[in-house]
Amino acid sequence: MLYAQVHLTLPAWVHDLDVSGTYPSDEDKINLAIELSRLNVEHRSGGPFGSAIFDANDRVISVGVNRVVPQACSLAHGEIMAYMTAQQRTQRNRLNALDDGTYVGPVTLATSGQPCCQCYGATVWAGIDRLLIAANAEDIETLAGFDEGPLPADWQGELAKRGITVVQDVLRDKARGVLEQYRDQGGVVY
Amino acid sequence: MLYAQVHLTLPAWVHDLDVSGTYPSDEDKINLAIELSRLNVEHRSGGPFGSAIFDANDRVISVGVNRVVPQACSLAHGEIMAYMTAQQRTQRNRLNALDDGTYVGPVTLATSGQPCCQCYGATVWAGIDRLLIAANAEDIETLAGFDEGPLPADWQGELAKRGITVVQDVLRDKARGVLEQYRDQGGVVY
Repeated sequence: MLYAQVHLTLPAWVHDLDVSGTYPSDEDKINLAIELSRLNVEHRSGGPFGSAIFDANDRVISVGVNRVVPQACSLAHGEIMAYMTAQQRTQRNRLNALDDGTYVGPVTLATSGQPCCQCYGATVWAGIDRLLIAANAEDIETLAGFDEGPLPADWQGELAKRGITVVQDVLRDKARGVLEQYRDQGGVVY
Repeated sequence: MLYAQVHLTLPAWVHDLDVSGTYPSDEDKINLAIELSRLNVEHRSGGPFGSAIFDANDRVISVGVNRVVPQACSLAHGEIMAYMTAQQRTQRNRLNALDDGTYVGPVTLATSGQPCCQCYGATVWAGIDRLLIAANAEDIETLAGFDEGPLPADWQGELAKRGITVVQDVLRDKARGVLEQYRDQGGVVY
């Protein structure tokens, strides 16, 4: 019997979030992503990673946290959960464009940790204009023990060629704190 | 109102497939992946790409076809749909390992076209041992017009380091035929 459906969920605590305001600055946006990662660690509802996607008016389109182990799904990284829920909400397979190609960006992804090889590739197709990153790959590997996987040598340049601007080290220390919290709590590294 | 769920489906015609037998050779496995890509083109249910995942006994665990436009989801490439449905069926986030780390492979992904940057990254975490590819990146870009995105320079070597063997050009001409069929039919390139 083939499975012909996929069903993935964010944790129930997501329903209690108030994300109705605006998030004008890069720090505001990253702060939400880090708060999501922290809540995911506290609730033991997945790995120590959070993401949020913002529209051209600095409002939240979607959020995502890591759900790999609870959902038995290697795709369910925070960035991917945010992309998929944003796309289902907007019914756009490229978040910054309508079906007829009309541009509706800029759309921003803020993520508590540098995207791994999988989330990097997904970022190329998701239709975002700006990628804000807190903790870097080395932080993730040394503090939390997660492998980031193979990236193109000039990964930022390859995104720039496709119109995606990368901003790194936004509130990096705060995000590092959550990775340490996960490690100290004995969180699963898969 | 945040979306906290993701629901993706394969086309209804998948339920009519008989994949109950065994697929011993690389050609048998790739032949199924190409047949899936052909059916997806004929039914106009997505892009011209199909994949199938096989267990250690050469039996089908799951199948996937491209669903990006019908499901408004940039993640919904054939390989990713196959990974996610296989993982939901087996409840393993690494297909070739149980939760306690016990190895249950080899697990094989057969795909009608070389994985793009997104599916390449996802392949690193999905828990497969062998990756069988029919059409190559140039075929996909020149015959069907799809961008494959940025990969590490030695993408095969990076997979080999992680225990994943790549076999290319299996029934390549047959897969090229489906890409031409999609182009001639005026299929959407996004």
